[in-house]
Amino acid sequence: MTKIMSPDELEKELRAIGAAQYHDKHPFHAMLHGGALNKGQVQAWALNRYCYQSAVPRKDAAFMSRCHDRKLRREWIHRIMDHDGYGEEEGGIERWLVLTDGLGLDRDYVVSRKGALPGTKFAVEAYVNFVREKPLVEAVASSLTELFAPNIHKQRIAGMLENYDFINDDVMHYFRRRLTQAPRDADFALEYVKQNARTPEAQQGALDALRFKTDVLWAQLDALHVAYVEPGMVPPGAFVPDQA
Amino acid sequence: MTKIMSPDELEKELRAIGAAQYHDKHPFHAMLHGGALNKGQVQAWALNRYCYQSAVPRKDAAFMSRCHDRKLRREWIHRIMDHDGYGEEEGGIERWLVLTDGLGLDRDYVVSRKGALPGTKFAVEAYVNFVREKPLVEAVASSLTELFAPNIHKQRIAGMLENYDFINDDVMHYFRRRLTQAPRDADFALEYVKQNARTPEAQQGALDALRFKTDVLWAQLDALHVAYVEPGMVPPGAFVPDQA
Repeated sequence: MTKIMSPDELEKELRAIGAAQYHDKHPFHAMLHGGALNKGQVQAWALNRYCYQSAVPRKDAAFMSRCHDRKLRREWIHRIMDHDGYGEEEGGIERWLVLTDGLGLDRDYVVSRKGALPGTKFAVEAYVNFVREKPLVEAVASSLTELFAPNIHKQRIAGMLENYDFINDDVMHYFRRRLTQAPRDADFALEYVKQNARTPEAQQGALDALRFKTDVLWAQLDALHVAYVEPGMVPPGAFVPDQA
Repeated sequence: MTKIMSPDELEKELRAIGAAQYHDKHPFHAMLHGGALNKGQVQAWALNRYCYQSAVPRKDAAFMSRCHDRKLRREWIHRIMDHDGYGEEEGGIERWLVLTDGLGLDRDYVVSRKGALPGTKFAVEAYVNFVREKPLVEAVASSLTELFAPNIHKQRIAGMLENYDFINDDVMHYFRRRLTQAPRDADFALEYVKQNARTPEAQQGALDALRFKTDVLWAQLDALHVAYVEPGMVPPGAFVPDQA
């Protein structure tokens, strides 16, 4: 535990976390991609996941608010623009709302987050707070779930298009865009962590940060699973699908 | 104190704060613009002011990290780019470093902030923390010193070019750029505060926030004044000019 790793050993350990506990292992994901959900359950997923999407720019701004290195801020800011959009570019949050529109959800209701599960909101805000408070290298490491994202996005595009007649190509644009954005960001962040986690403690901190982030993603699917897989389990105030 | 003001009455009160206590009233400013400082004192001013310049993007990122309104974040983000630069655009911090270069200061030393006065650093970080912690409308109101900035920038460009042979047109580019940037930002922020401070308490909060911000600016000049106007007053570890 207290031995220093080489940068490549650290990378191997980071990647092993994805293999062990990324949310592509969650039963709810298998159901989502495999066509086992009804429309109401997919609505619940998209509406809750909006909370996460819409928090990402706040998370990235929290990172920049603590970063004294102008070069690093200049590198990081495109993440905010990728999600919020800028000028003519609509951004990933808008693309996510195209998905929720396509699922027949009211946009104002989605954006209000009023129907989102408490478990979703707590997990998402835990992530924003983590990035606001932890050492910079841990904040960067917590973004490394993007190393594992392209696979899940590919599965999702193929599986959801194939399995749901209420999903068409237009509403999957968010995921297609992330296929190029996520690897670029993950490569930069991985290199940063490998170069800047230079003590055994910092390396363990980076590994723990990535485990924390997989927990953030996993907990969101747990919240969906408990509320929307068994009938009669939707918590007070949360979105109630027509067909659940 | 507890009566609600109309938006225009609030604007009048906000502008009155500038008239009463903006740092253009500080004796050190009169000396700076009037040619009463030697080169070492101007160096001390530029080096300390770098701390403030370089903190502005962190302050704006702190604002965005708390802002759930995507439209407002999309509006605000250009402030970070104005200072940090983006892509080909060098940004205001780089332009400030052209000024410190021109004054013969070592760039790495300036960027390290090692020679900056403790009073400068405390004031600047108080501003970042204020924006991180206070209600959004107060965070926006604290930016409203930009309402009063163009005048001081014009005085500074004219006064410094006229009065110092070690200042030339090239190094004053930072201030010229702010002549267009600051009014655009101030107009937006003023409108936001007028529209969003809708209780007597919120209006007093906005006024107090702007007073706080004038204190942040004033305290930086106080720190310079005590350290660099009387001989023998430079605190331990702070920049020592050759000619002070």
